[in-house]
Amino acid sequence: MTRLVLIRHGQSAWNLENRFTGWWDVGLTPKGEEEAKLAGELLAAKGYDFDLCFTSVQTRAIKTLHIALEAMGRLWLPVEKHWRLNERHYGGLTGLDKDEMRARHGPEQVHVWRRSFDISPPAMAPGGEFDLANDRRYAGVAIPNHESLKDTIARVLPYWEERIAPALRKGERVLISAHGNSLRALVKHLSAIPDDEITGLEIPTGEPIVYELDDALNAVDRYYLKDR
Amino acid sequence: MTRLVLIRHGQSAWNLENRFTGWWDVGLTPKGEEEAKLAGELLAAKGYDFDLCFTSVQTRAIKTLHIALEAMGRLWLPVEKHWRLNERHYGGLTGLDKDEMRARHGPEQVHVWRRSFDISPPAMAPGGEFDLANDRRYAGVAIPNHESLKDTIARVLPYWEERIAPALRKGERVLISAHGNSLRALVKHLSAIPDDEITGLEIPTGEPIVYELDDALNAVDRYYLKDR
Repeated sequence: MTRLVLIRHGQSAWNLENRFTGWWDVGLTPKGEEEAKLAGELLAAKGYDFDLCFTSVQTRAIKTLHIALEAMGRLWLPVEKHWRLNERHYGGLTGLDKDEMRARHGPEQVHVWRRSFDISPPAMAPGGEFDLANDRRYAGVAIPNHESLKDTIARVLPYWEERIAPALRKGERVLISAHGNSLRALVKHLSAIPDDEITGLEIPTGEPIVYELDDALNAVDRYYLKDR
Repeated sequence: MTRLVLIRHGQSAWNLENRFTGWWDVGLTPKGEEEAKLAGELLAAKGYDFDLCFTSVQTRAIKTLHIALEAMGRLWLPVEKHWRLNERHYGGLTGLDKDEMRARHGPEQVHVWRRSFDISPPAMAPGGEFDLANDRRYAGVAIPNHESLKDTIARVLPYWEERIAPALRKGERVLISAHGNSLRALVKHLSAIPDDEITGLEIPTGEPIVYELDDALNAVDRYYLKDR
């Protein structure tokens, strides 16, 4: 039996401000840092250990991982960072306050953008404040203008297949620190959750989620670490 | 012209307590964290940027790197950690207070242990408080019982040749966060400093050292970033 642990990053500055974040790079709040520390302490207290860690190229997920690893005395573990584990790209909604969006477009439209499976938010206009075209970390990457959850899954899974699943098959114990929607992509895949159900699955910040996988990497069990 | 930047970790808990640290894993003090932040801010202010970072598997060097990268907005850069960049192993002196050692063995003997090129400190007795035989991070590594500076150089340089020099030859901009003696090893190699001089070279904590290297990776210049 193979175990895999997923953590969604702790509270970010824009979680707190209720703004659409997506690929924009914001830091953790003090509460978010505390959540990360508690996650690491819980993992250590429950006797969990790891061989390899994966995260996105976004500061909030990387810091969550670093803080949790430090709390475990495991800052020395190898860490791979990849844009394919980034949050869903919220396109033209990036940076906007969610309440303002609801007032402008109506709560139903905003709900559709946030929770539909295959409908993308409006595209990001080039050259705007949140355009990442000149961000060095995405050199050589076809940065999306916007993504549906379906789009997000389509770019997360190749990384799962290419890097994460092979490590698990070799028996390496893996910890992934990522984002609400990149983790939804993994949970949908591992637990075979239908398109119309995955959008309603909430992944809380800073709560380690444990997967028990069989040899074919099918999910045998999934639970919050705090509940066991 | 290729640039390479070296940083010795900021002040550690045992730097402050005046104890021999070596391979024992201690954290940074608040002053050490501040030094790391200032180093990152200085690098950013001077327009430095990097493609690849190297550090040891010791928390004080890893945290120095993480804090500096965060101050540069570069926490997403790839980081490789390796035991070959660790501090010199101080053997049986590990954990001892430097003043106490001087009182017990005489200041001249302690000076020899600290500053000779090829004389090792006494070996660490197995099973003691600071024995790392059961530390997972060194699984598969022939952990030394003690190291002279010469021994330290002998295990640092293969990593330079195998991982760091090839990255520089590919044109990657490299940042290394490491320790007083693993950095002495690199400085001795790059600047062709004689055996009897390298032991007197002090490398200050948290000060970025810039190397300008020619195509054959010979040093053309070496300076503290703050001085330019």
